[in-house]
Amino acid sequence: MNDDNDPNLNCPVPISDYPRILLAHGGGGKLMHQLIDRIFATAFKNPYLETRHDGAVLETGSDKIVLTTDSYVVHPLFFPGGDIGSLAVNGTVNDLAMCGARPLYLSAGFIIEEGFPMEDLWRVARSMQQAADSAGVSIVTGDTKVVDKGRGHGVFINTAGVGILEHNQVVNPGQVRAGDAVIINGDIGRHGIAIMAQREGLDFETEIESDCAPLSDSVQELIKAEIEIHCLRDLTRGGLATSLVEIAESSGRQIWLDEKTIPVRDDIRGACEILGFEACYVANEGRFTAFVAEKDAAKAVEILRTRCDWPEATVIGRVTEEMAAEVIMKSVIGAERVLDMLSGEQLPRIC
Amino acid sequence: MNDDNDPNLNCPVPISDYPRILLAHGGGGKLMHQLIDRIFATAFKNPYLETRHDGAVLETGSDKIVLTTDSYVVHPLFFPGGDIGSLAVNGTVNDLAMCGARPLYLSAGFIIEEGFPMEDLWRVARSMQQAADSAGVSIVTGDTKVVDKGRGHGVFINTAGVGILEHNQVVNPGQVRAGDAVIINGDIGRHGIAIMAQREGLDFETEIESDCAPLSDSVQELIKAEIEIHCLRDLTRGGLATSLVEIAESSGRQIWLDEKTIPVRDDIRGACEILGFEACYVANEGRFTAFVAEKDAAKAVEILRTRCDWPEATVIGRVTEEMAAEVIMKSVIGAERVLDMLSGEQLPRIC
Repeated sequence: MNDDNDPNLNCPVPISDYPRILLAHGGGGKLMHQLIDRIFATAFKNPYLETRHDGAVLETGSDKIVLTTDSYVVHPLFFPGGDIGSLAVNGTVNDLAMCGARPLYLSAGFIIEEGFPMEDLWRVARSMQQAADSAGVSIVTGDTKVVDKGRGHGVFINTAGVGILEHNQVVNPGQVRAGDAVIINGDIGRHGIAIMAQREGLDFETEIESDCAPLSDSVQELIKAEIEIHCLRDLTRGGLATSLVEIAESSGRQIWLDEKTIPVRDDIRGACEILGFEACYVANEGRFTAFVAEKDAAKAVEILRTRCDWPEATVIGRVTEEMAAEVIMKSVIGAERVLDMLSGEQLPRIC
Repeated sequence: MNDDNDPNLNCPVPISDYPRILLAHGGGGKLMHQLIDRIFATAFKNPYLETRHDGAVLETGSDKIVLTTDSYVVHPLFFPGGDIGSLAVNGTVNDLAMCGARPLYLSAGFIIEEGFPMEDLWRVARSMQQAADSAGVSIVTGDTKVVDKGRGHGVFINTAGVGILEHNQVVNPGQVRAGDAVIINGDIGRHGIAIMAQREGLDFETEIESDCAPLSDSVQELIKAEIEIHCLRDLTRGGLATSLVEIAESSGRQIWLDEKTIPVRDDIRGACEILGFEACYVANEGRFTAFVAEKDAAKAVEILRTRCDWPEATVIGRVTEEMAAEVIMKSVIGAERVLDMLSGEQLPRIC
């Protein structure tokens, strides 16, 4: 019997556990994964969703394209190093890049709260265009909705992105192999701390700017150099730790990290200590990990450092021989511990 | 000098006119068109946006695909004949169909208000899947954000859609020709009245259900029969009148309508009289006009009536020889008047 067509099928998140949506359901951690698995992946069951990737690889006639989407609800709308507009372009461009695609086109849907200043909307739209120019994409179609005052929050932006796959490398968590090097392109934690500092009116000695940046050129350089890439993942909600746990769980592989090799700026480390955060759970908007065949690791790091302007790119870990879906981090003092996904929300409304 | 790169360029909507966004900026009428022209089309200037169509026709490698997007903020979320989920699928499927494309894939972005009932989210997701099944599309990628209580309104949904152009007909307002027949697929005004009745607790003798439905099969049938289609437009925000004024303005052509041929149900006519609306400005979610070469008009109507289950499909007007960007309607008592776009908002949060 196929109960897919039974409209009375019970809600698969037990109501007694979570009768209502919590902020944590959007925080990038365990509850969000549970919500996506039990509600959306169950209702929309299809093979595209099962890859658990940043976007879907699709056949249209003779081409392979990638489709991805993200809504942006960051608050505050303007922050050091970016704004909701640059985030809405770079975030979606980066999701396409993480699927190995060359980003081409974006759509933009605006949900604007009644009373939102026209000047701010113009500022956001200009920022989107500048980010689109930098990333080499065009914003080709859009939609505008206005909701009653008190039923939105300034402006929410959704972008969907279309990119094209121009190579035969399959890049997704299922391709991760024992021995793969885990490479990061730079220091972590800046976006989350920049938002938090702005939101809470915290003053650090140096202004902390978001790392918001497009990653598509970097990925294209790696592909052009024929680096054997197995998986790519940007380190947004939930940070480095959560994204690696996702990959460990999807691939069934054990990932081993060396904490002392993970670049963290001193001011970020200090801010994390004050705020009680761990840098590896803080959101980034211009950082990614590449899982690369061992033989190509040194070359990949070299390309990121010299051709892509990521001087701190480095190997931070390895995929082990163990078939254990977990991430183990050797701390700076040498102790080993299993990393978990972010549970609940650390910083809501971060993207 | 290219001032496209000047970040200080002044906001092109004069601030003294509209310093803040009004609900009417999302109502589908004049103010929304002004906002889109002056803010978004100015900031994102590119040839794709200039076609002023429901979606963008794009080249990816060797294929022609269409990308479109819409956000759905309808309130109430559940209404007779549909809900925000079925609307979010059909609305975007229909935008693809109006570009002459065969809809293939959708993305879905959810912005959920903290505290939203889990059961309602499940109900919406199931409704989306049922609508996707009916329209023959797959929901292949998605995103979930949660906003603080009082900063959203239950759930907002964005869908973006990708379709493929499998024929060489160019379908857009620029193709409209003198002599073209304007064909409608059924009676108008149901969706707007259904929402309004639900929102205001109005009780009519018969329950008025939204006309929410996918239109892609109907368009595919017309294309398969080699009907010479010049333009297609769904009759959503702003209704029949606003959508025809848009086409008249984009094409520079005069459109002549005969009011007595436009199908309106008696209960809708009655509700419009009570509420002070004109049916031709009320939103629909399963109605479209096709601008078809004169020679194919009778055949197109026949196909819609017999093969597509639209028994009321009919010719409601013609494109005249006049190069005047206007819509003229001959009323039931024989008087002629120029139709204007909806000015301001008639019914906000309708889709």
